[in-house]
Amino acid sequence: MAVRPKVVVVGAGFGGLQCAKALTGKPVDVLVIDDRNYHLFTPLLYQVASCLLAPAEIATPLRTLFRHALNVRYRQGRVEHVDTTAKSVTLADGDVLGYDALVLATGSTTNYYGKSDVEAQALGLKDLGEALRLRNHVLTCLERAVIEPEGDDRRRHLTFCVVGGGPTGVEYAGALAELVRLVLPREYPELDHRDVRIVLVEGTDRVLPTFPPRLSAYAQKTLERLGVEVRCNSLVDSADDRSVTLVDGTHYPTYSVVWAAGVRPADPLDEPPGASSGRIVVDDHLRVVGSEGVYAIGDVAAGHDHQGATLPMLATPAMQEGRYVARDIAEGPLPKPFRYRNRGTLATIGRSAAVGKVGPFQFTGLFGWLVWLTVHLYYLIGFGNRVRVLARWAYYYTRLERPVRIIAKADDRP
Amino acid sequence: MAVRPKVVVVGAGFGGLQCAKALTGKPVDVLVIDDRNYHLFTPLLYQVASCLLAPAEIATPLRTLFRHALNVRYRQGRVEHVDTTAKSVTLADGDVLGYDALVLATGSTTNYYGKSDVEAQALGLKDLGEALRLRNHVLTCLERAVIEPEGDDRRRHLTFCVVGGGPTGVEYAGALAELVRLVLPREYPELDHRDVRIVLVEGTDRVLPTFPPRLSAYAQKTLERLGVEVRCNSLVDSADDRSVTLVDGTHYPTYSVVWAAGVRPADPLDEPPGASSGRIVVDDHLRVVGSEGVYAIGDVAAGHDHQGATLPMLATPAMQEGRYVARDIAEGPLPKPFRYRNRGTLATIGRSAAVGKVGPFQFTGLFGWLVWLTVHLYYLIGFGNRVRVLARWAYYYTRLERPVRIIAKADDRP
Repeated sequence: MAVRPKVVVVGAGFGGLQCAKALTGKPVDVLVIDDRNYHLFTPLLYQVASCLLAPAEIATPLRTLFRHALNVRYRQGRVEHVDTTAKSVTLADGDVLGYDALVLATGSTTNYYGKSDVEAQALGLKDLGEALRLRNHVLTCLERAVIEPEGDDRRRHLTFCVVGGGPTGVEYAGALAELVRLVLPREYPELDHRDVRIVLVEGTDRVLPTFPPRLSAYAQKTLERLGVEVRCNSLVDSADDRSVTLVDGTHYPTYSVVWAAGVRPADPLDEPPGASSGRIVVDDHLRVVGSEGVYAIGDVAAGHDHQGATLPMLATPAMQEGRYVARDIAEGPLPKPFRYRNRGTLATIGRSAAVGKVGPFQFTGLFGWLVWLTVHLYYLIGFGNRVRVLARWAYYYTRLERPVRIIAKADDRP
Repeated sequence: MAVRPKVVVVGAGFGGLQCAKALTGKPVDVLVIDDRNYHLFTPLLYQVASCLLAPAEIATPLRTLFRHALNVRYRQGRVEHVDTTAKSVTLADGDVLGYDALVLATGSTTNYYGKSDVEAQALGLKDLGEALRLRNHVLTCLERAVIEPEGDDRRRHLTFCVVGGGPTGVEYAGALAELVRLVLPREYPELDHRDVRIVLVEGTDRVLPTFPPRLSAYAQKTLERLGVEVRCNSLVDSADDRSVTLVDGTHYPTYSVVWAAGVRPADPLDEPPGASSGRIVVDDHLRVVGSEGVYAIGDVAAGHDHQGATLPMLATPAMQEGRYVARDIAEGPLPKPFRYRNRGTLATIGRSAAVGKVGPFQFTGLFGWLVWLTVHLYYLIGFGNRVRVLARWAYYYTRLERPVRIIAKADDRP
């Protein structure tokens, strides 16, 4: 019996998961390595942070996803080193695993651009631990504000500064504003919801800068109607434990700096081949330049479209890349290079308002929101999760509730 | 306008919640103080620890529960000191709050009986943080067992020692055995589920010692059919980071000691009036002996039935006490003393098997399980939670799934 080639997929985000799924049933043995034992549907992470969804509704155990994939195994672990000569990866627990083909799909992590003071204070919104921490933090701020007498410290507990006007910042700021407007009047009689201040800070001249200007304008208007102060052309200069200061000197007393201003590739290669973005340089077959049998996909890789433009760090290119690489591995080198098909972009701003662009079509408002809802349910992993999330949206969007408002975390003894 | 009496309720478990609810609309101002911002339905906590339910399904925000109770306010905080002379409570954050009537309903916490080595190693199952930690721990053990080569360390990762054969220990051991039997064969091809060892250690001569002997025998038989080793007449002597040892010398190599062997009152009074159990001594109106306007209910109090027997530390007496105290406060001293009505006891052992005793009736098996299911759904707080939990049970008990198998916790930066 011939030895089956061993494919190691590092990371089970959108790219890695699609790759492993596309390799299911092919004549290879696949090992998926991820520190997390679940696939996370990151586009809805802000809904966990804003008390609408429970973590398990957007996180599916990897072993469940690969249950019927007899040639796919999962191994919990973190890759610390890749030896492209010996064709092996070294894990944090010391194990060394060989490969015939390696797919690096390690994604990205919050990027503080070297601002260590901001990093020490800010709350990220990139993985489940950060989202749960943010949820607990916001709820705790509201409880503290109830206790504080009126004055500076109360205002500080009620001021939330969201940095970054991309989809994550816009969606979270909108959801936070809705949480405040829906829940405070009914359940915090001690507070006036108009005392809550939500500031969205964006470095460029408009929110959602990767969207058409008309959609940016609509998004900003919708946010402002929800009570969010939108500050464009603004950058964060510094932060301490009681405030954040912008480059133009504006000073916001706050305990809450939510950082959605950028991500950086989470590169497991010790010496990234030096793309200025930090993303791994790949050829038009998504092979890592200068090594054999190594692919990189998704946020960690600098894949490009047929016009040479680097692809955005989004789920869609990662998924397409994952499927392409699976075919390139299973069916030998593909004659055609990888070609990205832009399916469009979507972002939602609170209940029943979203913006989107698909091909030449732009849409806003309720129609945009229905498209957003359909697309996200379609891509959400697992039938049970789809049913549950749809039921939750149907129930809570109409009832104007935000149910998952518990301050809870696992005990943290070693 | 007359000043309305101020009632402070410390703790929002079963007793405190019932008391506050019964005071709703009465001519008093109620302040509920709890460190947790939710009411926890502890009877189903073991289902969170065993991956069947999500935390928010058994935890309801207190502010939601009191939304329509205009004379009830909630304040997050922990009472550190009670001054019965000055009639005030001091919180951990320094605030001092006066009261006209005080209801101590602080419940209980895990009791390690002074065994500090066990406390350092063991995993409790009494609050949400402990349950989430236990869930993460068990899932991590399974992932580690996959990685370890066959041998001692693998067996150690697959051995789970549950200490305490009361309802919590029995229900968790049964649920853990089901988790292993359902999930491992399908999703852990690397492991043989028969290598998993679950030991239930009980100090008396039978599990569920407060139930009739016939029901204990049935429970033990059902557990054994699920693969649980039941060790009665056994006490834990010591534990270290790799094993647990019983008093008779039996040594179990394990990383997992689950402690369900007892609880102790969480008493906020600095000088407990010296009941040997540590529970606060109360008179037949549940007033704390030797102070004025102070009541104690639930696990923290040594309430007794009309025959003088101390009441068990369970939800039912706490709820009845809470309602009685509310009436005693609102309607002046009640002519009749508190009288406990025993509604019976229930415990479930895995899917479709439970034991129960209601008055002269004892029941087991599927019928007992249906009673258990009905009672728990009835008492579960919140319509949404009832619907969700019922849907989950219906879906996952028939599909034999355990969906919430994610290793997740909130990030733990300060």
